[in-house]
Amino acid sequence: MSDHIDFYFDIISPYAYIAYKKILKIKDINFKLKPIFLGGLHNIAGITAPAFNKYKMKNMQNDCELVAKKNNINFKWNSKFPINSLHIMRGYLGVKDNKKEEYLNSFFEAYWKEDLDLSKQENVKIQLKKLKIDENAFFNSIGNQEIKDKLKQYTQEAFEKEVFGAPTFIVNNKIFWGQDRLEYALDEIKNI
Amino acid sequence: MSDHIDFYFDIISPYAYIAYKKILKIKDINFKLKPIFLGGLHNIAGITAPAFNKYKMKNMQNDCELVAKKNNINFKWNSKFPINSLHIMRGYLGVKDNKKEEYLNSFFEAYWKEDLDLSKQENVKIQLKKLKIDENAFFNSIGNQEIKDKLKQYTQEAFEKEVFGAPTFIVNNKIFWGQDRLEYALDEIKNI
Repeated sequence: MSDHIDFYFDIISPYAYIAYKKILKIKDINFKLKPIFLGGLHNIAGITAPAFNKYKMKNMQNDCELVAKKNNINFKWNSKFPINSLHIMRGYLGVKDNKKEEYLNSFFEAYWKEDLDLSKQENVKIQLKKLKIDENAFFNSIGNQEIKDKLKQYTQEAFEKEVFGAPTFIVNNKIFWGQDRLEYALDEIKNI
Repeated sequence: MSDHIDFYFDIISPYAYIAYKKILKIKDINFKLKPIFLGGLHNIAGITAPAFNKYKMKNMQNDCELVAKKNNINFKWNSKFPINSLHIMRGYLGVKDNKKEEYLNSFFEAYWKEDLDLSKQENVKIQLKKLKIDENAFFNSIGNQEIKDKLKQYTQEAFEKEVFGAPTFIVNNKIFWGQDRLEYALDEIKNI
């Protein structure tokens, strides 16, 4: 039996942001954060993301706004969605362990609350400054082969567990896909 | 303001079956049943159904079983999923108004509870016999040009309202996609 819930995420996913904000409020369960590169995962799994279908895209925006409202989560649809999240996700792997939580929260909010265009380096730099993360160290890390390989490896490992989207929760080797299924993942770990 | 909820469905969708079973229990809200041909709708909207991706397919089966269990709905994944639902949906349009509800319930259950292969005419005939629907009249109706056009027209009308999947609920011109969103559709009509 699992003693924690694995939480697979990419900052690019609005539903991962909503799920992340939900799990921050849950104090009695341990979540293990599993960064992946969602674009890469979709490619391996042969999936076209909803962002690339105009009807799904429009519905996703309305739905996210509604889900966020129902859950009292501050949310603003990003006007530059989607962007390539590779650098931000590599950056997450590159920052020190004691900075990871702050980094994640800050970048999630920059993209899904403050409507920042994180494809622009100047906006990434503003975030880094707020987080007191050295700019040069950061940009070196995201070009570092070890970091690149690590994100690839994490994405591949997720795929091997049959994760095909984000957010995904895994408990007792069972997959729960989507922020809607957090409740079921919680039931599973609590043996309900 | 809407005085009812539009419910777009195709018998082929397991989530539409779950949603249908849920709405049967709701007595204080009026639902208008809107039959569509989901395969056709997906084609117009440029969407690949989850049934055609093996990872999504597997997840959908597990998810449906779990959602059904949590909602006390009898459910069995159909071992012949997917099939072409065109004849069954045309048949729904062809049967008399006072038979439609019974027809729908019977075919939904045949496919999503009794694991019948409804692509086999002999199994369709067994259902018709149970329903006391004349076999010849039925098979004539599904070949009838008017019925064919009607299903096309309903599907096209759904698409024009930006419906792109099933089940979909519409209230106050707002779209709620998926059985997970029935609750939000109910909130909308109750002005919550």
